[in-house]
Amino acid sequence: MDIVALLTSAGINIAVCVVIFSLYSILRKQPSNVNVYFARRLASQYSRQVDFWLERFVPSPGWILKAWETSENEILAIGGLDAVVFVRIVVFSIRVFSITGVICTVLVLPVNYYGKDRLHKHIPLESLDVFTIENVEEGSKWLWAHCLALYIITLAACTLLYFEYKSITKLRLLHITGSPPSLSHFTILVRSIPWSISESYCDTVNKFFSQYHASTYLSHQMIYKCGKVQKLKDGAEHMCKVLKDSSENSCKPGVVPCCCLGNSTDSFKMVSNEMGSIHERTCYTDIDTRKREFPAAFVFFKSRYAALMAAQTLQTSNPMLWATDMAPEPHDVHWSNIRVPYRQIWIRKMATFSATIAFMLVFIVPVGLVQGLTQLEKLQKMFPFLAGVLKNQYVRRVVTGYLPSVILVLFLCFVPPLMMLFSTVEGPISRSGRKKSACWKVLYFTIWNVFFINVLTGSLISQLSVFSSLKELPATLAKAVPAQGTFFTTYILSSGWASLGFELLQVCPLLYNLFQRFLLRVKDDTLNGITFPYHTEVPRLLLFGFLGFTCSILAPLMLPFLLIYFFLAYLVYRNQIINVYITKYDSGGQYWPIAHNATVCSLLFAQLIALGVFGLKRSTVSAGFIAPLLIVTILFHQYCRKRFLPVFRSNSAQILIDLDKKDEQCGRMEEIYEQLRSAYKQPMPHAPSPSECSSPLEDKGIAGTSEDIEKGVVIKQTRPGPIHRTLSPALDISVLGGNQVSDPACTLNKNIPDVPDPVHEHLIKDGL
Amino acid sequence: MDIVALLTSAGINIAVCVVIFSLYSILRKQPSNVNVYFARRLASQYSRQVDFWLERFVPSPGWILKAWETSENEILAIGGLDAVVFVRIVVFSIRVFSITGVICTVLVLPVNYYGKDRLHKHIPLESLDVFTIENVEEGSKWLWAHCLALYIITLAACTLLYFEYKSITKLRLLHITGSPPSLSHFTILVRSIPWSISESYCDTVNKFFSQYHASTYLSHQMIYKCGKVQKLKDGAEHMCKVLKDSSENSCKPGVVPCCCLGNSTDSFKMVSNEMGSIHERTCYTDIDTRKREFPAAFVFFKSRYAALMAAQTLQTSNPMLWATDMAPEPHDVHWSNIRVPYRQIWIRKMATFSATIAFMLVFIVPVGLVQGLTQLEKLQKMFPFLAGVLKNQYVRRVVTGYLPSVILVLFLCFVPPLMMLFSTVEGPISRSGRKKSACWKVLYFTIWNVFFINVLTGSLISQLSVFSSLKELPATLAKAVPAQGTFFTTYILSSGWASLGFELLQVCPLLYNLFQRFLLRVKDDTLNGITFPYHTEVPRLLLFGFLGFTCSILAPLMLPFLLIYFFLAYLVYRNQIINVYITKYDSGGQYWPIAHNATVCSLLFAQLIALGVFGLKRSTVSAGFIAPLLIVTILFHQYCRKRFLPVFRSNSAQILIDLDKKDEQCGRMEEIYEQLRSAYKQPMPHAPSPSECSSPLEDKGIAGTSEDIEKGVVIKQTRPGPIHRTLSPALDISVLGGNQVSDPACTLNKNIPDVPDPVHEHLIKDGL
Repeated sequence: MDIVALLTSAGINIAVCVVIFSLYSILRKQPSNVNVYFARRLASQYSRQVDFWLERFVPSPGWILKAWETSENEILAIGGLDAVVFVRIVVFSIRVFSITGVICTVLVLPVNYYGKDRLHKHIPLESLDVFTIENVEEGSKWLWAHCLALYIITLAACTLLYFEYKSITKLRLLHITGSPPSLSHFTILVRSIPWSISESYCDTVNKFFSQYHASTYLSHQMIYKCGKVQKLKDGAEHMCKVLKDSSENSCKPGVVPCCCLGNSTDSFKMVSNEMGSIHERTCYTDIDTRKREFPAAFVFFKSRYAALMAAQTLQTSNPMLWATDMAPEPHDVHWSNIRVPYRQIWIRKMATFSATIAFMLVFIVPVGLVQGLTQLEKLQKMFPFLAGVLKNQYVRRVVTGYLPSVILVLFLCFVPPLMMLFSTVEGPISRSGRKKSACWKVLYFTIWNVFFINVLTGSLISQLSVFSSLKELPATLAKAVPAQGTFFTTYILSSGWASLGFELLQVCPLLYNLFQRFLLRVKDDTLNGITFPYHTEVPRLLLFGFLGFTCSILAPLMLPFLLIYFFLAYLVYRNQIINVYITKYDSGGQYWPIAHNATVCSLLFAQLIALGVFGLKRSTVSAGFIAPLLIVTILFHQYCRKRFLPVFRSNSAQILIDLDKKDEQCGRMEEIYEQLRSAYKQPMPHAPSPSECSSPLEDKGIAGTSEDIEKGVVIKQTRPGPIHRTLSPALDISVLGGNQVSDPACTLNKNIPDVPDPVHEHLIKDGL
Repeated sequence: MDIVALLTSAGINIAVCVVIFSLYSILRKQPSNVNVYFARRLASQYSRQVDFWLERFVPSPGWILKAWETSENEILAIGGLDAVVFVRIVVFSIRVFSITGVICTVLVLPVNYYGKDRLHKHIPLESLDVFTIENVEEGSKWLWAHCLALYIITLAACTLLYFEYKSITKLRLLHITGSPPSLSHFTILVRSIPWSISESYCDTVNKFFSQYHASTYLSHQMIYKCGKVQKLKDGAEHMCKVLKDSSENSCKPGVVPCCCLGNSTDSFKMVSNEMGSIHERTCYTDIDTRKREFPAAFVFFKSRYAALMAAQTLQTSNPMLWATDMAPEPHDVHWSNIRVPYRQIWIRKMATFSATIAFMLVFIVPVGLVQGLTQLEKLQKMFPFLAGVLKNQYVRRVVTGYLPSVILVLFLCFVPPLMMLFSTVEGPISRSGRKKSACWKVLYFTIWNVFFINVLTGSLISQLSVFSSLKELPATLAKAVPAQGTFFTTYILSSGWASLGFELLQVCPLLYNLFQRFLLRVKDDTLNGITFPYHTEVPRLLLFGFLGFTCSILAPLMLPFLLIYFFLAYLVYRNQIINVYITKYDSGGQYWPIAHNATVCSLLFAQLIALGVFGLKRSTVSAGFIAPLLIVTILFHQYCRKRFLPVFRSNSAQILIDLDKKDEQCGRMEEIYEQLRSAYKQPMPHAPSPSECSSPLEDKGIAGTSEDIEKGVVIKQTRPGPIHRTLSPALDISVLGGNQVSDPACTLNKNIPDVPDPVHEHLIKDGL
């Protein structure tokens, strides 16, 4: 492939991007699409003024400006900490690849280009290989330039990573201490409650926690079997629907169609009474209720610290009984997984692990086929009838430069849903946990498939001695990666740029909306608001980061395209966070450790490959200098693991105790206990409990079990807890519920901002 | 090698063993050796009646009977839980290899022997290879016998492992609940206390725990820098010695020479006052003391549960500060490691990890040389002058059958001390933890070096394509292991049997004793009592188990020798536990998870190798049947990890709270707090604190910091805590200190044994 072919590919993609971006700026102005492109704003009572007829069909860059101008605090308020972390990943990438780009253009590119004494063609006709490290002669002394560049890149990346980790750790701590008080901090999930003939599970829980956590145990809420409950409800639901049609008392549009009757069936009573009984600690004695109990419960504690203690400890000498975990936030609970028997979890984990590995290995087949396309000679041999078509120069360029990536991208589309399925089967109790687990899987999968399989099958497709030896891995990669540099560049162009365009256009929701509006003639303005697909977008960013690091000194011509990708990503994703995606749950920045690990891993691979390349080029000095770099990078990684990771794993005693004390001093505890009473509402599919319609908590953003939302039921999204958080912990401490707190100690921080908040003070002390 | 050669080797070893065992039975009767062979009994005031002159020089089997008859309860009382676990490992091995031996003799051996249609020689002249799986024809249908045998072996091993794990878990729980109350349960070790200009570390600790653990914090005890303290003491010590020589007030013989003066230097006062000040929670204000403080402290809590909570939680949002761990038992504390700065720990761990790996790789050199000996042709080529000697048939047998093992064993002697050194550098805070860590290292090392390197270099010594591919590992092992079967058989004969003999003879202490007694003319009866070297003996047993499992169906002729080894080991080690080794600290059965993991790993390797062998023999059906076996074994391992391992990692809330409640009801808490006051005495090398001489706790078996003992200083061992434990928790609950507990609730269990103990009841409930 030469420069012209690359520019052809780039041209196609730029054109596609411009068309898509313009199309987007037109489509978003159409009133009929407002629920596709402004789903989030719609959910927060956003009303858009209608543009004039002509203006609606002229592309405009207004959205770009808006995306650019939005501050991090606003992003935090809108999309939660996860959105901020996501934007930070993009910003980190822009920063680090700007430095890398400068270094590689100044240091590496000239060395590569003039690496061999050869007659250079006119640059546009120059093969791309001339710009890679392959063009440097064996034993050349100029290889120190590559070594130096790698040192600078590693240093820059580590420094930026360290400060990002520090800053995100601080944000996470503020997220934890932020208001309103997180109800999950008071709650643990107990699973695998032992069965006894004489007692119901409810009594067993009550007895156990009253005995062993007497001073801190508040109450509990059993989890009921869904299958049976649902069966019981089928009749009730039918009646309910009939009644609803004849009733005037219907809920607001945009709210889930609910049954607002008090006299519902027995199973309704059970659920609502259960919630009412929390403070009394009484259990049902009738056989039916006992039969419906599932051996799991949410247990509430009087303080955050007590809940953390109970969650972390081995409760009895049989670790398979009384398994405790911190409960997720109420709107983050994955209800169907909570009903997975605890004894199955480890088997499920092993099974999904094996299935993931198996799927990764099976996926080699399509990738191998794609790679065939980049080697036209081979293809022509296999399919002789193609020879005629492939003689056309333009077709050749498209086939080698564009088609493989497109096919690969199409194949890759099927991966995230499958990984999400695997993660669901695995049994995480929270939806954010499931997404995080899927994110890991997709990341491994993407890097394995896009990078390794491409590299190894692409270059060694004729010899099947892949991984012939682990010792030779660096050398194998060193041979293969520079050769695949061109493919990766086109991959960034096609997959990267185009994916941003499709992300912006929201093709599937758009088509669904059109289908609904013009074929089904549904006039309802509501569309299922979807959450940010971190499990596909985070791995995508990290994959491009991985490609960037590994190819930086080998094929530096890729970097400009990569930088453009990250710049576009910055604008596009910010726009999407502001306008499209709804924040239903928040993992509290758990994606940063993933990004950190992936980046360090990329650096290590870049170094290993460089080691191999220097070995091949017989530059022992440069190769020798890579060894300390490897060691330092590993040490840096270990240090960050020790220094920051525990904060992402568990909450610290100091912070929780400080929060407890503050709430106690303000007399806010009773209010929190009251909220706990109804926070964890078990969803009853098709027939929500009566309280859902008129729950006083709904407007506080705590209610609204979002399980239904994902199942396609539409609910009014009233900005749940995490999206209220702001960067300053001292700002909205007393904005809790409707009660005005009058204790001066509690409003102190609000009135006198100069007096430091005790929690904030600790963060400063701890060097954050 | 043929049967005759094997029997020659066996003959030599049997003769050696008989000689050694007889020698032992004579030597142990000599009064001059009593401190070598009865060190433990000597420590517990054992006086031996002197035999008649003639009887002393006639070998007798009395010790064998004694070792055979001792019950498990006695072993537990004498050697602690670790000794019981060790004996259990031997018993498990005997059981499982008895089953394996029977299966292999009945099923596998005839199949191997008649595997090929060949003219069999007279059995003594038959080559050993005829008895291995190599003699079975390719594609033979009789390979199902091997497959079936492997199924039965795996099933037997897993069943036995499960019940052993269950029973040892139960023993561990009884060990925890056993009396006297373990002071370490109330204590945590806090390291990395943040430095502040205005406060001493002592004040910082006081403030932090008073603030965040106000209701449960009892007191704390700072750790002081040893280097500086020691320097300050040099003068004091000298004066002390001078005074001691002129003073009549000397301690009993056998007790560390101590300074019993009240008017010692300032640094003495500091230490003793510190101990006195525990209840008052006051800190020193003078500059000198502050300077000597190390940023670490033992913090005592009012209840076991509170201490566990504090130890398990992340204290602040900076995980590098206020690092908490459960404290080890007072006599188990590794004082010099407690003074290692916490920030160094992770670097030290990584460094020792790398050093261990490096050492394992470097050790290939001597092993390769040893392997050369088994291939005489190669040796003759390299050293032509040996050709004459090696023509002698007897010399050949000795060189091929005996010498390699002996050389290997000699090389291996240097490994445990080095691994112990690595483990010390790593920085574990307890001596049992250090030994456990060394045990892991030695285990990895032994299996890697003895098994893999021997197998891979031994068979493929001419081709250096070791590990040419991971995929081919089973096939490579399948080719190599049966060929090495003979070597492993002789290894068991020489290394195994002989090592037991040397263990019994205690060659080094014996020589040291002779040297002291007849050259230095020291008449003192005391010898440094040594603890059981679990870090060398556990890996040895597990290595033989590994060899047994992997070779069982391939070269079943090894099994009888292995069984004899384990029988001898049973007798020898029991004898040593009863008579020789002193129990200074106890890890509470932590060696069982190591043994369990190693055994499961052995089974997996045996299956992998069988898979490879069946593949080579083109028996696809048998190979196919191995796959489910592999999966089931992995699932079994995972289940055991989930079901039992957490109990070995952490104590459960239920048990600790029950213990707390019981102690509170009996009013025993104040007494325990009083004991805590002086439990963790920081040793002052060469000059113990004045209280050491007349400490009232010494006779209760709690005092006596054993750091000094390992440094060669002799101390009277007064049976520390753990060795008092018995199997029944209800037996000696009120044997605490000197005070007689009169509360009927506390002595209830003693008087009415039919009423179940609450703790014991839980164990039954949990299915233990």
